[in-house]
Amino acid sequence: LFNQIDLEKRNAALAATEFIHNGMTIGLGSGTTVYWMIEILGNLIKNGLEITGVPTSRKTEEWARKFAIPLISLAKVDEIHLTIDGANEVDGNLNLIKGGGGSLVREKIVGHFSHENIIIINQAKIHPELGSFPLPVEVVPFGWELTSKYIQRLGGRVVLRKKHHQIFVTDNGNYILDCQFGSLKNPGALHHELKLLPGVVETGLFVDLTDKLIIGKNDSVEIMENIIK
Amino acid sequence: LFNQIDLEKRNAALAATEFIHNGMTIGLGSGTTVYWMIEILGNLIKNGLEITGVPTSRKTEEWARKFAIPLISLAKVDEIHLTIDGANEVDGNLNLIKGGGGSLVREKIVGHFSHENIIIINQAKIHPELGSFPLPVEVVPFGWELTSKYIQRLGGRVVLRKKHHQIFVTDNGNYILDCQFGSLKNPGALHHELKLLPGVVETGLFVDLTDKLIIGKNDSVEIMENIIK
Repeated sequence: LFNQIDLEKRNAALAATEFIHNGMTIGLGSGTTVYWMIEILGNLIKNGLEITGVPTSRKTEEWARKFAIPLISLAKVDEIHLTIDGANEVDGNLNLIKGGGGSLVREKIVGHFSHENIIIINQAKIHPELGSFPLPVEVVPFGWELTSKYIQRLGGRVVLRKKHHQIFVTDNGNYILDCQFGSLKNPGALHHELKLLPGVVETGLFVDLTDKLIIGKNDSVEIMENIIK
Repeated sequence: LFNQIDLEKRNAALAATEFIHNGMTIGLGSGTTVYWMIEILGNLIKNGLEITGVPTSRKTEEWARKFAIPLISLAKVDEIHLTIDGANEVDGNLNLIKGGGGSLVREKIVGHFSHENIIIINQAKIHPELGSFPLPVEVVPFGWELTSKYIQRLGGRVVLRKKHHQIFVTDNGNYILDCQFGSLKNPGALHHELKLLPGVVETGLFVDLTDKLIIGKNDSVEIMENIIK
């Protein structure tokens, strides 16, 4: 039995799998909502669906193996037809904050390369403007204290991410700074300013990437299409 | 006894040390020209000069210890008064290509934080426009093949850096792509385009950073000041 949030996540995941067809190479995002998608995908594969997955984190790779999803490394794919990923927060223009789980770099590389991106969320994650969820920024460990100072100069309150009282280290060996800027009027401009700082590897702002947003709402789903992109 | 190039490097290094004063915190760059500077600095310290150094690479740290230069980590400094570093190529506006030794990220973080930057080179490294030296771009290992494709779309010929037939890994655990774009008309714009690509950690283009350029020329040195900055 699912609680309400898990039910919404699972419904969104289920709706996303309807866009998966035989022969596709699928980017597999990260996080709890993607977990449900992978479970459903495993069932579809058991029933004859033929696809190949490109995982965006070690955790996702582990889950995909558990559900017997054939995998291929990014180095070996010619194209990714569709990527299905979650998000921590989504605004009215379908821009995203991602990276709560720490896989933002890999998710962004895979999403950027993918022909189409479907984002699956529960309804609590959609807000008119981004900024409720602290923005994860991946930085090189060397001089992270300085990088943090520069982000503060741009107006952010910065916390070095820790896990079990240890500094959290990404799959790429970097640190995450969780940054609160208040309400984000112009996420694209903020992403540019942050990414151009020496020491910044990537930001959790995914701007103009989403093609379809699937929102789990109580017992149904709502699909929003990005008509600008 | 020195060969001509080493003599020019050493003369530039010697001239740079005249800008070092008691009580300063000094960013110590990387590379062969900086080696001479560290040797000279070691002598000055032996004769009573009191400074503290912030190294930009493991190699530089090793050299600094050899010449008994007191060191402090970047995390602990409040300010860096002066950074002295080398370059692979310098243009007429004192913009630089750096990263031949693979320490571009740390050098850029330290240089960016430093009140003043002096660049020391032998005369063969100065050209009207950058681009003779392949531009080093540091990238995360995950998906480097894709990142390479995106750089090629921007017009670059790309080679993954290797050392002793192994992929070269930076002090930050990343790879280096050496990229040839021909003559660089607008290094600032190219830096922006590259740095904004997902997977790119930093580029070897150092634009508007140099305050003084010291060029070793035969038996003398020429000092160029950046009057724009």
